[in-house]
Amino acid sequence: MATAALSPATASLRLKPFSSTVRFLSLYNRHQPKPNKLKYQFIITPPHHPPKLLLHFNHLIGSTTDRRCFSTVVSAAVSPGEVAEKSKTESIEGIVGEFRKRLRISEIKGGESEGLDRLGQTLTVRGWVRTLRVQSSVTFIEVNDGSCLSNMQCVIDSAAEGYDQVESGLITTGASVCVEGVVVPSQGKKQKIELKVNKLVTVGKSDPSFPIQKKKVTREFLRSKAHLRPRTNTFGAVARVRNALAYATHKFFQENGFVWISSPIITASDCEGAGEQFCVTTLIPSSKEVIDSPADAIPRTENGLIDWSQDFFEKPAFLTVSGQLNAETYATALTDVYTFGPTFRAENSNTSRHLAEFWMIEPELAFADLNDDMACATAYLQYVVKHVLENCKEDMDFFNNWIEKGIIDRLSDVVEKSFVRMTYTDAVELLLKSKKKFEFPVKWGCDLQSEHERYITEEAFNGCPVIITDYPKDIKAFYMRLNDDGKTVAAMDMLVPRVGELIGGSQREERLDYLENRLDEQKLNKESFWWYLDLRRYGTAIEYQKEMLQVIHAEKILADSVLSQYNINSIILVLIVLFYLVPHAGFGLGFERLVQFATGMDNIRDTIPFPRAPGSAEF
Amino acid sequence: MATAALSPATASLRLKPFSSTVRFLSLYNRHQPKPNKLKYQFIITPPHHPPKLLLHFNHLIGSTTDRRCFSTVVSAAVSPGEVAEKSKTESIEGIVGEFRKRLRISEIKGGESEGLDRLGQTLTVRGWVRTLRVQSSVTFIEVNDGSCLSNMQCVIDSAAEGYDQVESGLITTGASVCVEGVVVPSQGKKQKIELKVNKLVTVGKSDPSFPIQKKKVTREFLRSKAHLRPRTNTFGAVARVRNALAYATHKFFQENGFVWISSPIITASDCEGAGEQFCVTTLIPSSKEVIDSPADAIPRTENGLIDWSQDFFEKPAFLTVSGQLNAETYATALTDVYTFGPTFRAENSNTSRHLAEFWMIEPELAFADLNDDMACATAYLQYVVKHVLENCKEDMDFFNNWIEKGIIDRLSDVVEKSFVRMTYTDAVELLLKSKKKFEFPVKWGCDLQSEHERYITEEAFNGCPVIITDYPKDIKAFYMRLNDDGKTVAAMDMLVPRVGELIGGSQREERLDYLENRLDEQKLNKESFWWYLDLRRYGTAIEYQKEMLQVIHAEKILADSVLSQYNINSIILVLIVLFYLVPHAGFGLGFERLVQFATGMDNIRDTIPFPRAPGSAEF
Repeated sequence: MATAALSPATASLRLKPFSSTVRFLSLYNRHQPKPNKLKYQFIITPPHHPPKLLLHFNHLIGSTTDRRCFSTVVSAAVSPGEVAEKSKTESIEGIVGEFRKRLRISEIKGGESEGLDRLGQTLTVRGWVRTLRVQSSVTFIEVNDGSCLSNMQCVIDSAAEGYDQVESGLITTGASVCVEGVVVPSQGKKQKIELKVNKLVTVGKSDPSFPIQKKKVTREFLRSKAHLRPRTNTFGAVARVRNALAYATHKFFQENGFVWISSPIITASDCEGAGEQFCVTTLIPSSKEVIDSPADAIPRTENGLIDWSQDFFEKPAFLTVSGQLNAETYATALTDVYTFGPTFRAENSNTSRHLAEFWMIEPELAFADLNDDMACATAYLQYVVKHVLENCKEDMDFFNNWIEKGIIDRLSDVVEKSFVRMTYTDAVELLLKSKKKFEFPVKWGCDLQSEHERYITEEAFNGCPVIITDYPKDIKAFYMRLNDDGKTVAAMDMLVPRVGELIGGSQREERLDYLENRLDEQKLNKESFWWYLDLRRYGTAIEYQKEMLQVIHAEKILADSVLSQYNINSIILVLIVLFYLVPHAGFGLGFERLVQFATGMDNIRDTIPFPRAPGSAEF
Repeated sequence: MATAALSPATASLRLKPFSSTVRFLSLYNRHQPKPNKLKYQFIITPPHHPPKLLLHFNHLIGSTTDRRCFSTVVSAAVSPGEVAEKSKTESIEGIVGEFRKRLRISEIKGGESEGLDRLGQTLTVRGWVRTLRVQSSVTFIEVNDGSCLSNMQCVIDSAAEGYDQVESGLITTGASVCVEGVVVPSQGKKQKIELKVNKLVTVGKSDPSFPIQKKKVTREFLRSKAHLRPRTNTFGAVARVRNALAYATHKFFQENGFVWISSPIITASDCEGAGEQFCVTTLIPSSKEVIDSPADAIPRTENGLIDWSQDFFEKPAFLTVSGQLNAETYATALTDVYTFGPTFRAENSNTSRHLAEFWMIEPELAFADLNDDMACATAYLQYVVKHVLENCKEDMDFFNNWIEKGIIDRLSDVVEKSFVRMTYTDAVELLLKSKKKFEFPVKWGCDLQSEHERYITEEAFNGCPVIITDYPKDIKAFYMRLNDDGKTVAAMDMLVPRVGELIGGSQREERLDYLENRLDEQKLNKESFWWYLDLRRYGTAIEYQKEMLQVIHAEKILADSVLSQYNINSIILVLIVLFYLVPHAGFGLGFERLVQFATGMDNIRDTIPFPRAPGSAEF
């Protein structure tokens, strides 16, 4: 039981007109507009020390630097006289109080002096007990509030109010506590300061079955406790770095004039034809009855086909695999846009690199070519990595020590080094010349595997990110701009150490007839892309003369006949047209891959709060 | 055809060793690592004016303040000698160029002087043609790049390079252009400056069928052209204000120490039991075959039930209706968190206030009660509205003039006025006393309808946002904290003019047995909430003694027997326990409602790029 600071023996009860009997107890002081409703409220008035009580609450619950929390408890502790006076002056409506930022452990210990500038201050810390060490004369309670990796070491002895909670076993790992104390220099080596406890209150106790005790637990086990794992050092740090990466992403694009676009999650368009999709439907009986949903309840046509006209969207609808095509519609109106939202793959791959649900960042730039795209992707990655190195020092030190030795150097390289670029063709040659044995043989035309990508960035270029350009068209999406060789597309993949491909982008095919050809080649339904093709009809592509396109295609003819005056004129015209074609370009980045890259976490399921994979949609 | 600046007659072609024949044409200058591969590249060298050509490209394509775009075209235009020199000094890898922010119309015209500080500068603007006005001596082209509502008025006469494109009809609404000119004072009253065009290049022409011509079109029509509507004034402004609200949301929470959490989109948990959900499945044949998917292909058990074990997640899975419960798991580790992600309702309501897919912001605060929650919601709303008023002045003026007269005053009120708070019980009394005729009669226990909410905030409190607290428990979700009256819960709804309920929040029920009772009352499956209930087991609630709870419940007994010494002791213990119960609280905000509120748009489908509603999942 929380015996708290208030000794029952020193308090007496009074009855006061109030609108609800034990309302005072409920931690917030609702305004009471109706003094005519005679109900009762209890006000505690200690017979001997009223000022001390008030002081106590102020200290325990809201110190001067820290008024947001429990501020209403403080106001509830005013004397009955004050309450009565208030109700006279206020009309039916109350006024919402002020929202103040709370003092958090990161603010106390996060500065240059690691808290030494606060020596002698009386502060209140709230958080969850990580460990308890009972020594002969004093007890150490490590409290963490999630604002940083560091705990606040709280030193308590029997003189402190609430010490009996330590003795009675209330203070266990997982319990939440409210601790008031004085900042003193720490004797330990781990921290500069600690809190000498004046008062301790158990806010919520924790059952001894709390599954995350000090003993080491595996990440696999923690995945089954995804609701509690943020209370560990590792997952707290991942959550903070993930948050920093997300905010830095918004900052980078906003500072560069990009507009955030929410691309749709449910879509009846088959976006890329790439990747298995989840079907979204209401044809199957809804949540409450699903456990025993009869298959025959699904509406069907006379021919025994599923009757999609009765579905919510009146046609088959799916979870998006990419917001890019939608982003292009806004890029061709607002110039530079980006998406940052969830995307989905229904692929049955149970690997440490794949999720069924993951967040994507997809910038799209109008009036930009592949070079601009690469430059933007590079600047973006350097910006967010730098942001994390600068703003998550403590967490990064943790990853450096416990998750991946050398990660800080690896990330610093990314910020400082120039990114390498080379063509796919050159990359294949490089791989063929290497003495490395690969599981998958390398051949021009094959997609690069993770082992190849990692060899290039980790070994051949010694940890520099490498951008590979101009992939064979057959292994890339239909919307990537066909190069003039007719065989490759203006695509780029950014490879980084440990992760392999982190970013994939391309200049987009702006030529309507090329685009239609590519849709045909990939056996995609042109009609369902009507709106995407519209973008090319209205303001992205100059219309070609067919014979000119043929000149571009016919590379050999062009080279051979270059001296013929007729052809030279054609070529010049082609040159001119191409100069002013509408370049637009973009890239996509799997956000969880970025978190993996920045934290060194092995398994992508540990980079997102609630990972989704085959057979796994718990929580 | 783009005749552009280069006259074919003045250019000659040379052959140079290069890795791909027409690579030069593809708008980006890939680095060429293999001088031994003898292919050919064309370099244009005008016989008489080589320096002028270079200058031309620099001007047209990358002015000094504006180098990002086409910068590679500039580098491609260097002389052959320079190219040869480069290849000597570089190894196999190239270096990715620099990413620079482009000069946009908002930067030219957005300052205090509305562009007058740039008089005499030569600038390049890229964007889409809004209108073309041909006069006897000059032609006005209005160009918009989406960075702001304002167009750049470009004045062109026959002396300008590329004027023939005006004559030949290339410059039509929807075409994208690249315009270089000198900033001069404007003769018109609409703008301070305009661009006197030196050179005009059509980047992408627009077919005359472009559906958004100058004539007024309805919003309904534009919804069917969701891929082109961002090119209108209204939807460009909505996109920018939406973006500003999203960024301000992140800024507010980040500045206050909240951590962004991505709550899961697909979930096997039936979150609130509230709202119809979409089923997410791979049991139905995937996208490419769906048009004729036989109903019998869905796997079934022996009993004719759908065999969920064969589904992707091996059980029924749904699109989330709220990320709150997931956010609570992180709030009880990191103290303050927020979600900002899509949520879904499969409700068949075709109204102007509902979407099947919408974005929600759900902050969750540990160690916070309902008062803190209201204070946070108030501070949040004031912050984002202020941000928009300060950063989207031009767009807000547009909404004020064309969408909702007085919206700027309405929003300024929100920033400046104190928010009113009153209980549900008082609100019902207020409505009963009003002389207003409502469609839905008011009675204690009923949910407030939009008409009631709007009456309270618009009429009774004259445009002040009003927060209603303490709703009857039967109309609120199970997780809201039961008040001590046993009839109401510590809920709060924030009502704002025009929209009605904008924010809904509550203090969360931290008492395990109360929570279980409420789950039972609402006939929800306790077992599927095991992880949510775990939060109460580990660090949120002090364990109650049953008899104490009975005391709290038995309000009358308590009042009657208050003088008995035994009961007084019990009550005191209860008081103490309740003081230190774990408050945690949060709220949810529909982001599209916020966009409606801030723009005055009538229909919520016009506040999100690609709205989803019954029968509508196009694009």
